[in-house]
Amino acid sequence: MFLRVVLLILLILSLSSGYNVPGSSTRNSRLSPRCGAFKSRTLFANGVADHEAVLTNLKTEESKLMSLLTDVRSKKLAALRSKPLRIAVVGFGRFGQFIAKSFSKTSTVIAVSRSDYSSVAKDMGVDYYSLKDFDKVIEKGVDVVVLSTSILSFSSLLSSLLPPLRTIGGSQPSTNYPLIVDVLSVKSHPRRVMLESLPPHCDVLCTHPMFGPESGKNSWSNLNFVFEKTRLAGKTYPDPQSTLNDPSSSMDAAFSIDRVERFLSLFEEEGCNMVELSCEEHDRAAANSQFITHLVGRILGRQGLKPTPIDTKGFESVLQLIGSTNSDSFDLFYGLYKYNGNSMDTILKMKQAMEEVEAGLKLMEREDVNAPGFGGDAGLLGFQRKNQLDDSPL
Amino acid sequence: MFLRVVLLILLILSLSSGYNVPGSSTRNSRLSPRCGAFKSRTLFANGVADHEAVLTNLKTEESKLMSLLTDVRSKKLAALRSKPLRIAVVGFGRFGQFIAKSFSKTSTVIAVSRSDYSSVAKDMGVDYYSLKDFDKVIEKGVDVVVLSTSILSFSSLLSSLLPPLRTIGGSQPSTNYPLIVDVLSVKSHPRRVMLESLPPHCDVLCTHPMFGPESGKNSWSNLNFVFEKTRLAGKTYPDPQSTLNDPSSSMDAAFSIDRVERFLSLFEEEGCNMVELSCEEHDRAAANSQFITHLVGRILGRQGLKPTPIDTKGFESVLQLIGSTNSDSFDLFYGLYKYNGNSMDTILKMKQAMEEVEAGLKLMEREDVNAPGFGGDAGLLGFQRKNQLDDSPL
Repeated sequence: MFLRVVLLILLILSLSSGYNVPGSSTRNSRLSPRCGAFKSRTLFANGVADHEAVLTNLKTEESKLMSLLTDVRSKKLAALRSKPLRIAVVGFGRFGQFIAKSFSKTSTVIAVSRSDYSSVAKDMGVDYYSLKDFDKVIEKGVDVVVLSTSILSFSSLLSSLLPPLRTIGGSQPSTNYPLIVDVLSVKSHPRRVMLESLPPHCDVLCTHPMFGPESGKNSWSNLNFVFEKTRLAGKTYPDPQSTLNDPSSSMDAAFSIDRVERFLSLFEEEGCNMVELSCEEHDRAAANSQFITHLVGRILGRQGLKPTPIDTKGFESVLQLIGSTNSDSFDLFYGLYKYNGNSMDTILKMKQAMEEVEAGLKLMEREDVNAPGFGGDAGLLGFQRKNQLDDSPL
Repeated sequence: MFLRVVLLILLILSLSSGYNVPGSSTRNSRLSPRCGAFKSRTLFANGVADHEAVLTNLKTEESKLMSLLTDVRSKKLAALRSKPLRIAVVGFGRFGQFIAKSFSKTSTVIAVSRSDYSSVAKDMGVDYYSLKDFDKVIEKGVDVVVLSTSILSFSSLLSSLLPPLRTIGGSQPSTNYPLIVDVLSVKSHPRRVMLESLPPHCDVLCTHPMFGPESGKNSWSNLNFVFEKTRLAGKTYPDPQSTLNDPSSSMDAAFSIDRVERFLSLFEEEGCNMVELSCEEHDRAAANSQFITHLVGRILGRQGLKPTPIDTKGFESVLQLIGSTNSDSFDLFYGLYKYNGNSMDTILKMKQAMEEVEAGLKLMEREDVNAPGFGGDAGLLGFQRKNQLDDSPL
């Protein structure tokens, strides 16, 4: 998205000022059949000097572009800051505080929680409301509501937000409702719960920032941020994608798109790797990556494994896996299991694989005539007896 | 061992030439109570200049020691080369060739195998004998016989070596027999088989080089080499340790010690991390490190896991684990299981842990009133129904 904006601006600049954007017009003209043949002959004739000139030109082009990019970026940041989003972070635990701190760089953050986090919020320089005063947050107006809670308490937290949201009124357009965002490690569950319970004109964005206060401590650069634009201007994914890109779409849709893009750009600005993925695909992939990692980590974590004097590289990564997965709460592990429909299948496949591996070993055992305790050492013991006869005490 | 030799030589040098070995006399005199108190006051008075002088002296000392060390090392290498061991590597597959190549730098290597590897041996510049001509190898004389075979074929290979070894004769001293060395990834099994079947005057060294042609491709530096001096001069570990260090022990024992140390120094010279560990302890540690790593890798390897767009760091190490363990043969995995008495216990504990983890999840499931499909969304669905009434089509 950000790149698209930058490219668009560069394109406009190139058209208005005659500046050649490399990789588009410049490269094309150089590679056009006639001109290219001529150029390559000239290059060959003039040798090194010509090559150096080309390099110098490219470097100049590069530095011009870099300065344009810096300019565009600072303008974009200024734009974001000049029209800051009002973001309510509901649930102000460790993760809520973690994202709120980053949001507060360019946005107005309102912390909301059941437990009293007023002093933490004060230290961070953000407003604080108790969850039971959420109606006041709505009254004052808010662009985005981020639900930062555990998987297990998601639906109960959401239900306590519904009465204030309903005060906004029944058949209002989506512009009146805040965009509702979840950040859970499972996606189909919150998607279903939000679509089923929120007013139909409420925009919904499902996200999974695949990092936390530990892994994102220093920077969010190159960390995965998964999202699905679940419902915008009353249209539910994947149905509305074409409609939304349609220039004839309503003002409502334009407003919704602008707001969700501004929110997403908060993560984009921090350098996140933006992964647009349906909730369904996310859960399918997560069961066979994140959940299986936690499952194996939990199983191995019960073995009391410790470093030995003879650790292999493989075992060192086993110990690392145990450390990283067992430091998370069992609640999270349970949530990944119960609230992702694919996880039970992962457990069943894991158990089956364990049995298959064991069966493979037993099969070889039956065929292994040399196996200890199966009479396989008979030949050797024969030699041993002969040795004993010849070769005195053993 | 090598360090002990170096330290001994340095000690002798320091006594004869008056050279101060730092860390012994020099440091002690500096830290003696009276002198130390005086020194620290002087240091404080003279400040930076004095500190720099101390540093310069230490650097000079360091470089003198480094040059002595280099000298000792090159002399040691020359000594090894001047009296090269004759080493028969029996079993000349990938691993046999891998160690033979390194041995041949300082030793005379004789390759022996069932399959015809004569051309590989020729390329490596080492002699080659077919296994059925092992009697000729014995006849010509050999210091060390390294059995480089799979766990599964170890006892059958050993039994085919016994007749030629028996020709050496019954009640000869250990100096007449070669030192027999195994390199298996399990240790109690080959130890038992060798002690039970080899002539009682045959020296036995059990080893596990914890690296191979892949991990030791570029260097053996800092790679673990596990060994147990199982039987030397008729004395079996752990019984003979004190006897062997006893200066009154026989010429036989001195010969055995010298030979085993010369062989071990081949690995020491390559920079291996030398780990002296009993076979029993090795197998106990290996079942809870190497075997469990392979077990998990094999189980995970059956799940058809692939990189996803949302891989976590933990999952990346899971994929790495699968890759490294499944590239080894199933025979090796089976060997680690069947020929290590502790491995069955590892499997049982793993299965139990899997059941405990599942039971933990089921327990939470029963208590989780919000769980999907358990009527936990009832509150939400209540809101949803109200919303439906107020808020037109859902």
